[in-house]
Amino acid sequence: MENIMLIYCAVKVNGLVCKDPMQVQAEDFFFSGLHLRGNTSNPVGSRVTTVFAAQLPGLNTLGISMVRIDYAPWGQNPPHIHPRATEILTVLEGTLQVGFVTSNPDNRFITKVLKKGDVFVFPVGLVHFQHNVGNGYAVAIAALSSQNPGAITIANAVFGANPPIPGDILAKAFQVDKSVVEQLQSKF
Amino acid sequence: MENIMLIYCAVKVNGLVCKDPMQVQAEDFFFSGLHLRGNTSNPVGSRVTTVFAAQLPGLNTLGISMVRIDYAPWGQNPPHIHPRATEILTVLEGTLQVGFVTSNPDNRFITKVLKKGDVFVFPVGLVHFQHNVGNGYAVAIAALSSQNPGAITIANAVFGANPPIPGDILAKAFQVDKSVVEQLQSKF
Amino acid sequence: MENIMLIYCAVKVNGLVCKDPMQVQAEDFFFSGLHLRGNTSNPVGSRVTTVFAAQLPGLNTLGISMVRIDYAPWGQNPPHIHPRATEILTVLEGTLQVGFVTSNPDNRFITKVLKKGDVFVFPVGLVHFQHNVGNGYAVAIAALSSQNPGAITIANAVFGANPPIPGDILAKAFQVDKSVVEQLQSKF
Amino acid sequence: MENIMLIYCAVKVNGLVCKDPMQVQAEDFFFSGLHLRGNTSNPVGSRVTTVFAAQLPGLNTLGISMVRIDYAPWGQNPPHIHPRATEILTVLEGTLQVGFVTSNPDNRFITKVLKKGDVFVFPVGLVHFQHNVGNGYAVAIAALSSQNPGAITIANAVFGANPPIPGDILAKAFQVDKSVVEQLQSKF
Amino acid sequence: MENIMLIYCAVKVNGLVCKDPMQVQAEDFFFSGLHLRGNTSNPVGSRVTTVFAAQLPGLNTLGISMVRIDYAPWGQNPPHIHPRATEILTVLEGTLQVGFVTSNPDNRFITKVLKKGDVFVFPVGLVHFQHNVGNGYAVAIAALSSQNPGAITIANAVFGANPPIPGDILAKAFQVDKSVVEQLQSKF
Amino acid sequence: MENIMLIYCAVKVNGLVCKDPMQVQAEDFFFSGLHLRGNTSNPVGSRVTTVFAAQLPGLNTLGISMVRIDYAPWGQNPPHIHPRATEILTVLEGTLQVGFVTSNPDNRFITKVLKKGDVFVFPVGLVHFQHNVGNGYAVAIAALSSQNPGAITIANAVFGANPPIPGDILAKAFQVDKSVVEQLQSKF
Repeated sequence: MENIMLIYCAVKVNGLVCKDPMQVQAEDFFFSGLHLRGNTSNPVGSRVTTVFAAQLPGLNTLGISMVRIDYAPWGQNPPHIHPRATEILTVLEGTLQVGFVTSNPDNRFITKVLKKGDVFVFPVGLVHFQHNVGNGYAVAIAALSSQNPGAITIANAVFGANPPIPGDILAKAFQVDKSVVEQLQSKF
Repeated sequence: MENIMLIYCAVKVNGLVCKDPMQVQAEDFFFSGLHLRGNTSNPVGSRVTTVFAAQLPGLNTLGISMVRIDYAPWGQNPPHIHPRATEILTVLEGTLQVGFVTSNPDNRFITKVLKKGDVFVFPVGLVHFQHNVGNGYAVAIAALSSQNPGAITIANAVFGANPPIPGDILAKAFQVDKSVVEQLQSKF
Repeated sequence: MENIMLIYCAVKVNGLVCKDPMQVQAEDFFFSGLHLRGNTSNPVGSRVTTVFAAQLPGLNTLGISMVRIDYAPWGQNPPHIHPRATEILTVLEGTLQVGFVTSNPDNRFITKVLKKGDVFVFPVGLVHFQHNVGNGYAVAIAALSSQNPGAITIANAVFGANPPIPGDILAKAFQVDKSVVEQLQSKF
Repeated sequence: MENIMLIYCAVKVNGLVCKDPMQVQAEDFFFSGLHLRGNTSNPVGSRVTTVFAAQLPGLNTLGISMVRIDYAPWGQNPPHIHPRATEILTVLEGTLQVGFVTSNPDNRFITKVLKKGDVFVFPVGLVHFQHNVGNGYAVAIAALSSQNPGAITIANAVFGANPPIPGDILAKAFQVDKSVVEQLQSKF
Repeated sequence: MENIMLIYCAVKVNGLVCKDPMQVQAEDFFFSGLHLRGNTSNPVGSRVTTVFAAQLPGLNTLGISMVRIDYAPWGQNPPHIHPRATEILTVLEGTLQVGFVTSNPDNRFITKVLKKGDVFVFPVGLVHFQHNVGNGYAVAIAALSSQNPGAITIANAVFGANPPIPGDILAKAFQVDKSVVEQLQSKF
Repeated sequence: MENIMLIYCAVKVNGLVCKDPMQVQAEDFFFSGLHLRGNTSNPVGSRVTTVFAAQLPGLNTLGISMVRIDYAPWGQNPPHIHPRATEILTVLEGTLQVGFVTSNPDNRFITKVLKKGDVFVFPVGLVHFQHNVGNGYAVAIAALSSQNPGAITIANAVFGANPPIPGDILAKAFQVDKSVVEQLQSKF
């Protein structure tokens, strides 16, 4: 608990710019717009609106952040990982199948169908997803245990890295022909 | 990051009871009912429904939790402190005046009126409140940076402690007659 | 344990100024004057002399600090909170009633009368106080588990915030007439 | 730094069994066999020999562990994540292409070919791999910043979870036909 | 900040015994006797009276502790290290030369003569000492940033280990004849 | 877990210089040369080659580092302490007697002879050493739980500090004549 309270520092390319605690304003701790539906017109049919330290500078050093997730019918927040945060999520609207997979060697798939008012926890660093299993829209609010949790979408990191991970490496990793890997890579 | 993942330990009177990671189930990470309106028929006109480790054991060691707060018209979540957590809150419904007070010697009151979709941060350990400034009901979802954040309602801790803090001590602290303190103590 | 040893950074309005470890001197780890009686001529009859990172820059990142507290006869260090530190206190002179209140819902008042050589602990974030219950002066030395622990005096934060917390909000929180709140607010 | 030194606690199904510091022996801090070549006769052509707290109980609470990794010719330690640790690796023998992918939205692939004596860092929670790019065997020693870092092999967690993640969910996530997903799932 | 407040656990040979938060009493946070002069009739002429978690169980998990140090005339608290804590010390009585040595490669000796009311900081893990440079008794109160800081007196750990560190190893380390090492070892 | 991933900051005399996450390159996470034998032509007959944040800037904030240690025949890495890290070591070549000493009051010497492939742990802040007990060269790879662990060689810090610790203070600490201390001090 050594943080210097109410001083926040925005990260710039070449250093840190900090704010005098006497100068903080209510706006430094404020963000608006989390009631707005995110645009889900994309291949996975979901949109995450983040309230991280980049959007709300007063969060810096405080170890928490929030997101809103919108899901089109049958859309999903695809399998991903937060490298620096546990996530707790509650469903505001709709029905979601959620799940995470435990680490090696068991790789147990822990899953649950959530309805409005249900809450679920995704422990730090585990692969997890949410999938809208209804014909209507779905909305969730989630919080993460870091002001800068990061997100790694598995499909994008593995098959859509820039530059690409060499196809023969992925072919052996996923034990398929390189052509299957190239098919996967062509999507991202 | 030394936690032993997916083992959680429930605190019992005489020790800790832990769960084998091979035995965890989806239910261990699940809670339901956060869509239900809390009963606000009480003097302050609000109700906090907590999803802490005591309600959702899978949160143990993961450093995050969630609450729903219901506010009757003109109700309030009175000035209080979370000794072990920062809070991030978003308004689902209604209009709330929120605020916190910075520490000594400035005691600056940082306040904002929040509408649906607005987000606000209450840094760890500071006195803060939310007050429904509308004639309708209000609802907020908030998350806290501890699975066991604790809450200390100022009025209850100071004037409603059990046994009571001696009246002459409080009279000097608040610089009023002991009769005023006794009036305050009679309410809690 | 990622701190970079022996480099300390003083917080300035617009950033951090750090010191080269080769340039540190004994004076960077030194403070004098903790034997001097503090001026207790104030309404609560106490004075806290702080040795925080602001007074002793070498404390930065090291997670500890020290204070001396002087108490006039029947003076008190009024109910307050350290948002980022546990406190351990020992009485050098005099007799003090000390206490803290546990968090909701119990709000148990844990109290003890301390004499010279007694030691007491105030856990992080809890409301606590010390009150001189003798006709003589009293002195205590205390240490806190942060180099920048912060302090929030309840009376000042609640009734003396700047600008003031609206009286009707406090009236409901403390369940008294707004006139009582205004009386309280007039003192700070 | 609140750990109780030299007491270690082995996790059992129903609690923790701890060892008296007076009873610790050199064997509690000892492991042997890291010079032995691991069996790489498996589809990915690699083997990780772990020295985690499960293998070396004295590591408990100390926040570090070690592994040896053997690579058959053209074998790989496939894309995986350590949810609770950064990894630092040095090559003892052979030539390895290593890499990690940064988080969303950039997903930059940071890669390097390492020879004997080269060192590389894989930051906590990022997808990373090593691939033997030579015709001989390769060996690396790596250390991780947790005594229980965990490992999640992407292919196994995503396509080999038990029970399986539903194929239609993965088909949308990877934007391929469900038949491609089923082909991938059949390998794990 | 994930500690479960007000539950403390005493370490026993075969596990942890924890206390129900509803059962804590003021005595759990209390220690007495720090005003008593310690017995300094020993070769180094000093005595440390500790208030660690072992003496004051309520300190557990709270990250702080306190000691009183008595010094006979020309006595010393000999060069030692706290492996898990920074120390902050104030002189109550007498005059002390204090110092610490920075780490390799500089090994700078940072020293200061302290009088009554002076405060000095000894950063975590560094070799430090206090030496009474007056003809009278001296007394200091110090606090440490761990409830279980540990102490390693250099002379005792190096020359008085049990069983002894082999003399030829120490002879090379200190670059003296083995007979000098044996002379040193005979003292502890 | 509040670190801002993939931004690293190099410490300069007058502040911190940080790198934009978009600008990081593979070289920022890379170091070469750990296969090279260190020069052991010195009085203790060993050499530590460090891969700390100073040598590999990408380690910053990640809490881990690595070293290679070379030992001439009968050479030693003399008794020392890492103030901010636990060490885990494995022997690549040769035979080493290793050991550490527990803290006061027991000062138990925990020791073991290690051969190729053996692993040993030296807990944070304890005095430890490795000694080549063979006629051949020996090599070890070790990792430390900090990117900036620090090292304090006991002999150098105690008898070779700059300026020297006064001889009479050390004479009393080690309970020998000042002439013995001066003999020891003349070596460093």
